[in-house]
Amino acid sequence: MGKKKVMLPTNEVDLATVKYQYDNIEAPHLTGFWLKFFVKLLEAPLIGSLIISNLKKENKMIEMLRNTVIPEAPMFKPEFPPQESETEVVLLEEDGKPEERVELALKSLPAYDPAKSWNADSSAFHYWKIRDYAYAYRSKLTSPSIVAERFISAMEEFNNKKPPTPLLISYDPELIRKQAAASTQRFEEGNPMSILDGIFMAIKDDIDCFPHPSKGGTTFFHEVRPVKKDAASVAKIRSCGVILVGKANMHELGLGTTGNNPNHGTARNPHAPERYTGGSSSGPAAIVSSGLCSAALGTDGGGSVRIPSSLCGVVGLKSTYGRTNMGGAICDSGTVEIIGPITSTVEDAILVYAAILGSSKAERIAMRPSLPCLPNLSSRESLNVLGSLRLGKYTEWFNDVFSTDISDKCEDILIRLLETHGCQTVEIVIPELHEMRTAHIVSIGAESTSGLNPDFEDGKKVKFTHDTRTNLALFRSFSATDYVAAQCLRRRLMNYHMEILKNVDVIVTPTTGMTAPVIPPAALQSGETDLQVGGNLMRFVVTANLLGLPAISVPVGYDKQGLPIGLQFIGRPWAEATILRLAAAVEVFFDLTLASL
Amino acid sequence: MGKKKVMLPTNEVDLATVKYQYDNIEAPHLTGFWLKFFVKLLEAPLIGSLIISNLKKENKMIEMLRNTVIPEAPMFKPEFPPQESETEVVLLEEDGKPEERVELALKSLPAYDPAKSWNADSSAFHYWKIRDYAYAYRSKLTSPSIVAERFISAMEEFNNKKPPTPLLISYDPELIRKQAAASTQRFEEGNPMSILDGIFMAIKDDIDCFPHPSKGGTTFFHEVRPVKKDAASVAKIRSCGVILVGKANMHELGLGTTGNNPNHGTARNPHAPERYTGGSSSGPAAIVSSGLCSAALGTDGGGSVRIPSSLCGVVGLKSTYGRTNMGGAICDSGTVEIIGPITSTVEDAILVYAAILGSSKAERIAMRPSLPCLPNLSSRESLNVLGSLRLGKYTEWFNDVFSTDISDKCEDILIRLLETHGCQTVEIVIPELHEMRTAHIVSIGAESTSGLNPDFEDGKKVKFTHDTRTNLALFRSFSATDYVAAQCLRRRLMNYHMEILKNVDVIVTPTTGMTAPVIPPAALQSGETDLQVGGNLMRFVVTANLLGLPAISVPVGYDKQGLPIGLQFIGRPWAEATILRLAAAVEVFFDLTLASL
Repeated sequence: MGKKKVMLPTNEVDLATVKYQYDNIEAPHLTGFWLKFFVKLLEAPLIGSLIISNLKKENKMIEMLRNTVIPEAPMFKPEFPPQESETEVVLLEEDGKPEERVELALKSLPAYDPAKSWNADSSAFHYWKIRDYAYAYRSKLTSPSIVAERFISAMEEFNNKKPPTPLLISYDPELIRKQAAASTQRFEEGNPMSILDGIFMAIKDDIDCFPHPSKGGTTFFHEVRPVKKDAASVAKIRSCGVILVGKANMHELGLGTTGNNPNHGTARNPHAPERYTGGSSSGPAAIVSSGLCSAALGTDGGGSVRIPSSLCGVVGLKSTYGRTNMGGAICDSGTVEIIGPITSTVEDAILVYAAILGSSKAERIAMRPSLPCLPNLSSRESLNVLGSLRLGKYTEWFNDVFSTDISDKCEDILIRLLETHGCQTVEIVIPELHEMRTAHIVSIGAESTSGLNPDFEDGKKVKFTHDTRTNLALFRSFSATDYVAAQCLRRRLMNYHMEILKNVDVIVTPTTGMTAPVIPPAALQSGETDLQVGGNLMRFVVTANLLGLPAISVPVGYDKQGLPIGLQFIGRPWAEATILRLAAAVEVFFDLTLASL
Repeated sequence: MGKKKVMLPTNEVDLATVKYQYDNIEAPHLTGFWLKFFVKLLEAPLIGSLIISNLKKENKMIEMLRNTVIPEAPMFKPEFPPQESETEVVLLEEDGKPEERVELALKSLPAYDPAKSWNADSSAFHYWKIRDYAYAYRSKLTSPSIVAERFISAMEEFNNKKPPTPLLISYDPELIRKQAAASTQRFEEGNPMSILDGIFMAIKDDIDCFPHPSKGGTTFFHEVRPVKKDAASVAKIRSCGVILVGKANMHELGLGTTGNNPNHGTARNPHAPERYTGGSSSGPAAIVSSGLCSAALGTDGGGSVRIPSSLCGVVGLKSTYGRTNMGGAICDSGTVEIIGPITSTVEDAILVYAAILGSSKAERIAMRPSLPCLPNLSSRESLNVLGSLRLGKYTEWFNDVFSTDISDKCEDILIRLLETHGCQTVEIVIPELHEMRTAHIVSIGAESTSGLNPDFEDGKKVKFTHDTRTNLALFRSFSATDYVAAQCLRRRLMNYHMEILKNVDVIVTPTTGMTAPVIPPAALQSGETDLQVGGNLMRFVVTANLLGLPAISVPVGYDKQGLPIGLQFIGRPWAEATILRLAAAVEVFFDLTLASL
């Protein structure tokens, strides 16, 4: 029997008394036989609920959700107060054509200098940006069909690699050749559809891309949920002329942060093949990080775009909740998830984001978003705006990382942003980070599992990996009252963050609390459950999911082992322009060339 | 292992194929020893969850919530499309003073004719309306202090009645005398605060009314939740000069529809003391039905204002979700509940509603309500508007009542509305009424229980009645995924109803499927669980709760046993004026005199 705790209303909480506290999740790290055995126990009628209940007690979930009087009313979806508009921006039209938005986005970028890419030392690896391809196609240096053949032979190489690194779950060279031929013809006729015409992009396996099946990283989900058309976001990039290379690998159903996938093989980190890419958008991040695609679309419900982007040294954008249309994603009805781009550079993130943005009319009536906009990076005023930005940093949280390499590199950037542009870093305090994690896991757990229940009850649960079954056992144990209590916590956290974001323009953190973890060999076959690694990877990301805020991860260097480190900016509601502006400024500090592949 | 069912999207459902089906809830009817024994079993670790799980299976809840693919996204709170404004109305200002709104409401009423009340046969019982009191005070026929003494002696009489009929849980004659003296003085100084000055009103025990404790019908809830000030709605009527007589009896925590209350005694139906008042606002309906107060405030999360109003032969108004401010109600954070008036006449409902309306600013930003308005009953045009209204009737549902007395009386009214005013009745079909019941019980169950969890876990559950403990065991068994699935069903039902309400102005039903049930003697001591009676009482009411629509119950006569029958109008979002207009027209058909008390 617990002891009742009573929370003060958020406006009566004295921030000066808040102590930083972020315990790691207490749970066994299991793989191989022990994982299978554990899942058997978990799914057994009595012992199962006992284990789960103990797990929740250990991690104070029972205390937070059932023993605490929370004075706030539930907030079931992010609700934002009206926001001031950003300055020095290019406005985009949600109802307009994606091609037109991309054209406007193009005008927001600094002038393109072909020499930068084309005269570079050709022996070193370097990322080809969307504008590099566009330049090459338009100046007949190459054609989409030529690139397609290179892509197809590179994919063969990857598939024969030891260890194999399965980037795509569904892939058909003929479909790629066909799209490339059509694009090539458009260029020959001098009539490309947009700057994105002929650009190669991968789509995470939980977003519909016709005629590919959407397995969501499972072995069977496409059988119970057939794909009839493109997801809304995929239709938009297709109408810009993008060449869709197939469905990228992912952590099964997105319910994990490593990218481990015993069903289709685990994607390897391009920077260290014995390590994870991070997840759940493992394939999208790996294919972009490998230089095979300029961009990919992922989903981010608990850092799933930003975590692998950080671990793979690429850019990942999570837009504000309600900015993108989730129609045609496997979890299309959650309150924490969005579809976002993973790219090698910030300017590519801008171009792809411009193409895919725009939610459904119903969603827009419900959310009343500010107009979407991009930073006007081609204007001189832009630098002044940059210099006026205040960056909120909660130092104890910022420094709570697995290795000081991470916090040091991120700190360096803040110093450079101050020295170069005058961006002030302001110390902030964020209460109830534990409660945030709990509220998030209950929300995403219930929302992602609710749609799976019919198949679960149908006896198909044995087809899921043991890792997924562990998560589902936990998620299904949350009660309806837990869900409502989690939403009351969401309102508290929203109240705190809206106050914090009055004083600072963004909150800045490392993207992840650790760099790419090693893949235990046993985990390749049987999967793995490691909530401690999950906790380290998710420590900084869930704010943007639970509260629907925009956030971006941008690479800022490497740790001593040569593994990429990402920095995260979390913005005000609807303020994508501000975080993109900062990310673009950070990117300039770095040579984008990777040391090795 | 269930068999998976796949629902069509609502816009593909062919209404022509919909069959009426409404099974009664299958559950044991228990009281006395067997109820106590059942609760012991329910709360036991293994057998408890087995019983609950079986109960949910029997009633197809598992099937609906876990074995069904629901294509719609969840709707966590009522979301309405923009609505056309009503015509021939008086607009009210939510931010204005309650006294000013009441003054405007007064102007919307037909002219007051003192002769009607004051020259009536004084031997027959008749309800004194607010305007009767107001006239009497202003013409010095009586004073609030004189009425207060009559009220206090009547209360003593009631308390000594056999059987006792405990109308008020918290009551202090001195507090009444003090308020009455102040009101009397205002009249003497010729300076009453509003038409409501000196009007006697009771407040349901789950709405804060300082300095009374809010027990919510329990024995101990005021100890864990002290009252520091008036609820928002109570503060509004107090500022109009209302005399607050105390806290009215209710079904414990509102979790029941009969009004049974072993803690404080069960209020008796003024029309038949061996019968229930209905609930959960048992005391408010009984005190108004007895003629002791002109009005009372109740809460309605699952018919709790309308059911007892119907069973006690008085008027009960449930406004649109978001019209009233729930601050200071025990369940102030639900998505189905509102605070509404119970009165003896429609015009009194109008006056009290005008005083209490107005939600919090945050709620208004979230809900974007149409401006609140009242029917202009003083205009000649009003009758034309009335004649143009189309009443939607789903005959198979309408006729699914315990005795044809109910459907016949209600049908008579539709004929009289057609003959007198030209209101057309239009046949409609409403799909998924079962699903509506399930979605509602999961929503209200989780939302009302979430706030109780801390005390439950604290070991205080033994202080609740066995009836409440039965309900809590069910409510706490719903999973977070059930809650999300219920919200997907809510969106489906909303889609259907918004389509139906394009073609008709209101949906018309009996208020309840049965008239006042007999109180089993054993239930007075130990409580009772009777989900079948609950099902009959709730059959028509939950639409307005789950979908947030306005609804009103108006008395239309008696069954063969002399028990009151109520008719319900369910309106479009924010369209309180339309249902009030219809209710006022219906009321005119009847002599308001009750046969006996």
